[in-house]
Amino acid sequence: MAAFKRIRLRPRFLRDVSKIDTRTTIQGQEINAPICISPTAFHTLAWPDGEKSTARAAQEANTCYVISSYASYTIEDIIAAAPGGFHWFQLYVQSDWDINKQMVQRLEALGFKALVITVDVPVLGNRRENKRNQLNLEANIMLKDLRFPGERKSTLPALTSLPSISFCWNDIPLLQSMTRLPIILKGILTKEDAELAVKHNIQGIIVSNHGGRQLDEVPASIDALREVVTAVKGKIEVYMDGGVRTGNDVFKALALGARCIFIGRPIIWGLTFKGEHGVKKVLDILKEEFRTCMALSGCRSVIQKSPESKEVV
Amino acid sequence: MAAFKRIRLRPRFLRDVSKIDTRTTIQGQEINAPICISPTAFHTLAWPDGEKSTARAAQEANTCYVISSYASYTIEDIIAAAPGGFHWFQLYVQSDWDINKQMVQRLEALGFKALVITVDVPVLGNRRENKRNQLNLEANIMLKDLRFPGERKSTLPALTSLPSISFCWNDIPLLQSMTRLPIILKGILTKEDAELAVKHNIQGIIVSNHGGRQLDEVPASIDALREVVTAVKGKIEVYMDGGVRTGNDVFKALALGARCIFIGRPIIWGLTFKGEHGVKKVLDILKEEFRTCMALSGCRSVIQKSPESKEVV
Amino acid sequence: MAAFKRIRLRPRFLRDVSKIDTRTTIQGQEINAPICISPTAFHTLAWPDGEKSTARAAQEANTCYVISSYASYTIEDIIAAAPGGFHWFQLYVQSDWDINKQMVQRLEALGFKALVITVDVPVLGNRRENKRNQLNLEANIMLKDLRFPGERKSTLPALTSLPSISFCWNDIPLLQSMTRLPIILKGILTKEDAELAVKHNIQGIIVSNHGGRQLDEVPASIDALREVVTAVKGKIEVYMDGGVRTGNDVFKALALGARCIFIGRPIIWGLTFKGEHGVKKVLDILKEEFRTCMALSGCRSVIQKSPESKEVV
Amino acid sequence: MAAFKRIRLRPRFLRDVSKIDTRTTIQGQEINAPICISPTAFHTLAWPDGEKSTARAAQEANTCYVISSYASYTIEDIIAAAPGGFHWFQLYVQSDWDINKQMVQRLEALGFKALVITVDVPVLGNRRENKRNQLNLEANIMLKDLRFPGERKSTLPALTSLPSISFCWNDIPLLQSMTRLPIILKGILTKEDAELAVKHNIQGIIVSNHGGRQLDEVPASIDALREVVTAVKGKIEVYMDGGVRTGNDVFKALALGARCIFIGRPIIWGLTFKGEHGVKKVLDILKEEFRTCMALSGCRSVIQKSPESKEVV
Repeated sequence: MAAFKRIRLRPRFLRDVSKIDTRTTIQGQEINAPICISPTAFHTLAWPDGEKSTARAAQEANTCYVISSYASYTIEDIIAAAPGGFHWFQLYVQSDWDINKQMVQRLEALGFKALVITVDVPVLGNRRENKRNQLNLEANIMLKDLRFPGERKSTLPALTSLPSISFCWNDIPLLQSMTRLPIILKGILTKEDAELAVKHNIQGIIVSNHGGRQLDEVPASIDALREVVTAVKGKIEVYMDGGVRTGNDVFKALALGARCIFIGRPIIWGLTFKGEHGVKKVLDILKEEFRTCMALSGCRSVIQKSPESKEVV
Repeated sequence: MAAFKRIRLRPRFLRDVSKIDTRTTIQGQEINAPICISPTAFHTLAWPDGEKSTARAAQEANTCYVISSYASYTIEDIIAAAPGGFHWFQLYVQSDWDINKQMVQRLEALGFKALVITVDVPVLGNRRENKRNQLNLEANIMLKDLRFPGERKSTLPALTSLPSISFCWNDIPLLQSMTRLPIILKGILTKEDAELAVKHNIQGIIVSNHGGRQLDEVPASIDALREVVTAVKGKIEVYMDGGVRTGNDVFKALALGARCIFIGRPIIWGLTFKGEHGVKKVLDILKEEFRTCMALSGCRSVIQKSPESKEVV
Repeated sequence: MAAFKRIRLRPRFLRDVSKIDTRTTIQGQEINAPICISPTAFHTLAWPDGEKSTARAAQEANTCYVISSYASYTIEDIIAAAPGGFHWFQLYVQSDWDINKQMVQRLEALGFKALVITVDVPVLGNRRENKRNQLNLEANIMLKDLRFPGERKSTLPALTSLPSISFCWNDIPLLQSMTRLPIILKGILTKEDAELAVKHNIQGIIVSNHGGRQLDEVPASIDALREVVTAVKGKIEVYMDGGVRTGNDVFKALALGARCIFIGRPIIWGLTFKGEHGVKKVLDILKEEFRTCMALSGCRSVIQKSPESKEVV
Repeated sequence: MAAFKRIRLRPRFLRDVSKIDTRTTIQGQEINAPICISPTAFHTLAWPDGEKSTARAAQEANTCYVISSYASYTIEDIIAAAPGGFHWFQLYVQSDWDINKQMVQRLEALGFKALVITVDVPVLGNRRENKRNQLNLEANIMLKDLRFPGERKSTLPALTSLPSISFCWNDIPLLQSMTRLPIILKGILTKEDAELAVKHNIQGIIVSNHGGRQLDEVPASIDALREVVTAVKGKIEVYMDGGVRTGNDVFKALALGARCIFIGRPIIWGLTFKGEHGVKKVLDILKEEFRTCMALSGCRSVIQKSPESKEVV
């Protein structure tokens, strides 16, 4: 959030901004605004209907929702709650490739539009706050007294093992051979890895530091975005999550080359506040703030942005 | 204000400063000091006589007062209160060009010396403080219990619609064809817009971020001033408002190329404190501080400043 | 600590990190992790068994413990407590070279593996905290009521005089002629002194600012490390101490060219908390954090690091 | 003080520092340490014996004391209190050159060794604190209840008028024609004025911002010192005052090219604490801290410093 605040806008005036178009596309599919939903775990901790509410809000807002491997409901239940929604799936690749294959087939059958492979959890980070809060994922969340334990049916039976610690660039072709879906890598923070992603025919990158929860003292996503965008040279789409709290932040990320941004915590806050309506409210506020920022920056359209323009510094 | 504080003065000594001349001219007309009054709305919120008091103080100080489109009194009333004053008018260009034309004719007839066109409000910014303070301009200010509702006669009947959202560079020639007054653009923050202003035969620019109230995270005016001054290459006069609180700030702005500065909030504070006398006091304090800063910086005259001198860093 | 926090990690992903090797060598001898124990004085102030407990923990962790000239126990007692341990000795060179010679012979006989010569105490720094806390080393610590006075047998009879104020580069050959042990200089902070160390055939440098206690306003060790590493051009091993509090800090120091780091205060905290077991706990926590940081940075081995890689910025 | 803290020391070790020599010379005369006393006004406000106590302490410390034009005692009384002392006189040049001439003759007769001309008070700065503290120099200090009014005999009868507002570079030759004493300019902050001083055959410069009391937002003296030292190219001696609170600060100023430093407030604090003995104590503490800093930086002598060495950064 501090990294976003350091970026200054360079508003341009005396342009006709009577028509502002916040729409864009990601992987070829239109969304109403470049504001999508990052994968986060266990939405029933925030609201009884959990991911089903999130999915309904995303569908209503016509934006992309990346469902987490650690969803509280089965993906079938979530999709059923928002059958017209635009969904990507966040996948932790498993050591057992049969499980990966089954999962991919299941996702394709359910109409998911992309696989988001989280690359920044080969091992679990040192989550001091979890220790301080005595939050034991296995014991407390999966087995014990959630607020609405009866309703929760985890997708986890197929994903009980931790992500593969040995999954690496050499395994990418195998994954690609299993699916016709675009593959997006989530968690890239360096130009070196961004170049490797392009070289391996990856379709997109979500620049992310896992909400700051995996490894302390990495760059802010918005700072890493610059070097990743420069490295990929426009060959693939680059997205980002982390620290986006206002429409200005959305605008800044796009001005620095992101195709869209994803939000995590604000979605959970909206969900906790008022379920589906809270999530929709968060998306609406950000979209309106983003539209205002576009108007006051003299930008009529998300798509028209040219690399020469310099909306931020 | 923080941006001003970061600028260091480079005082020069052993110069004869027994005669200090704070006078300068803007658009060819002399003012006693390069300290003028920015347009701000609804002065009766601060003092019963509102803009009439402000105008009297400005006339007494022999400086320029830019009357706001959202004045609490009719411009005729304000001018009548200070018939010998030096007045510019801040205009929000309307979608209806007949209204614009009538307004310009009325302003010329009343002796205004320039039109200040605010360019940074194609749409209203996201004014969170207004929401938090439950300040609804339409409902609360225009219609409800002001402290002195009986006295207020707004200039607004001719300006009830919001500024034109489509007003753009292409409309400048039409505006210029309607008037012989100099046109000043208020709200420019980038070199690109400054160059366009010169290209469109604009007579002056007020570098401003609307008191920080339109769009968060834009540059401080004093920081944007540098790039605007560089861009216009001395072809037109550049002024600034925003963050000026001391005579040192005035000096810094001039050292960085501003012809004069405008103040908004300090005028309202003076008005709230003691009406006309409070406004005059604010202008006097700033002028004396500015004179001291000139003497201690070895500057005898506002006019003599040469581009080679480097009074600040 | 602040200097460490300013350094950003650049994590690399999609590398097989199923096998992480934290081992390295210093002066040719293997340690389990590049986390060793800096010399600190008077461990019985923290725990009755003092340096004997520290030595046991270091031996169990298979790492290097640099015993201080101001240990609370005789070096014979300390070595006896951990006869299989890996020990270096921190030596304040005395004006009387006979004493130095006897000391070196005693250290060689006891199996010490290197002499760590502290160079940053030609005179005692201006330790304001000692004055404020009325801590008089001579009077209070050596003679008065320690918590366990009966047990303390100082190594100091041979070291009652202060370090030699005239000890200088010209004396290095004499010292080298007395011993076959590698000589490590502790306290170097500049590239000039690092180059002199190489020129004088010194075997290693511990970049250190004496825990910030000798001279205020010197660089942080981690900042000085960069210039020292550049200056020695890989000809000798460079270590550092000061400010290391997390496994990320260890990783950053190594990424900037340190062969290993040494910790002082955290060892004393562990010792105060639970003696030998507390020291071991501190070493274990740091090692595990370091291993996690390696995994999340895509580093499988401490040794494989190449100068081209850029793990931090 | 903050500017000093930002400067880092670069200590050098393994040099024989058994003999440290803090002596230096200013304008050819030896002082025990490069720590002298800046002119400050009205010492009887701090201690009944006022400047007489200060002079005694300076004489005992064998350092230079610059007596202020606004001393509480006549210069004859002050000199009589410390007849063997090393004194400069701080002079505000008056509009009436006869007064200046009489003053110079009186100073020469009394054995003063240099004239320190304060250049940064052509007009009095905007001293808000004086207003807030209701401190009126004329009314309160000169005429009303000082703590020891009976003892005070001001040098001011000859100096009742304010410094000349028109005194400038062109007047320097006239001043030089009146005296054989070296002329030192106090208050220079820019390279331009430093070059003019050299050009006008001035013998020395005290870089100073008048304790931050004349003009807000000028550079810290220690920052301005760098550009002044570079500009004079060693042709004349450069001193500084402002912000020196520790021996490290003294060392930093010398490392950046100052011949010596002057202190103002710390002297007053010492005087308030315990008169002559308090002033001596302040000088002694600073000198000892400076000596320690020299030893830990590997500097044996103030004089030997070569321009190539880089003791700070």
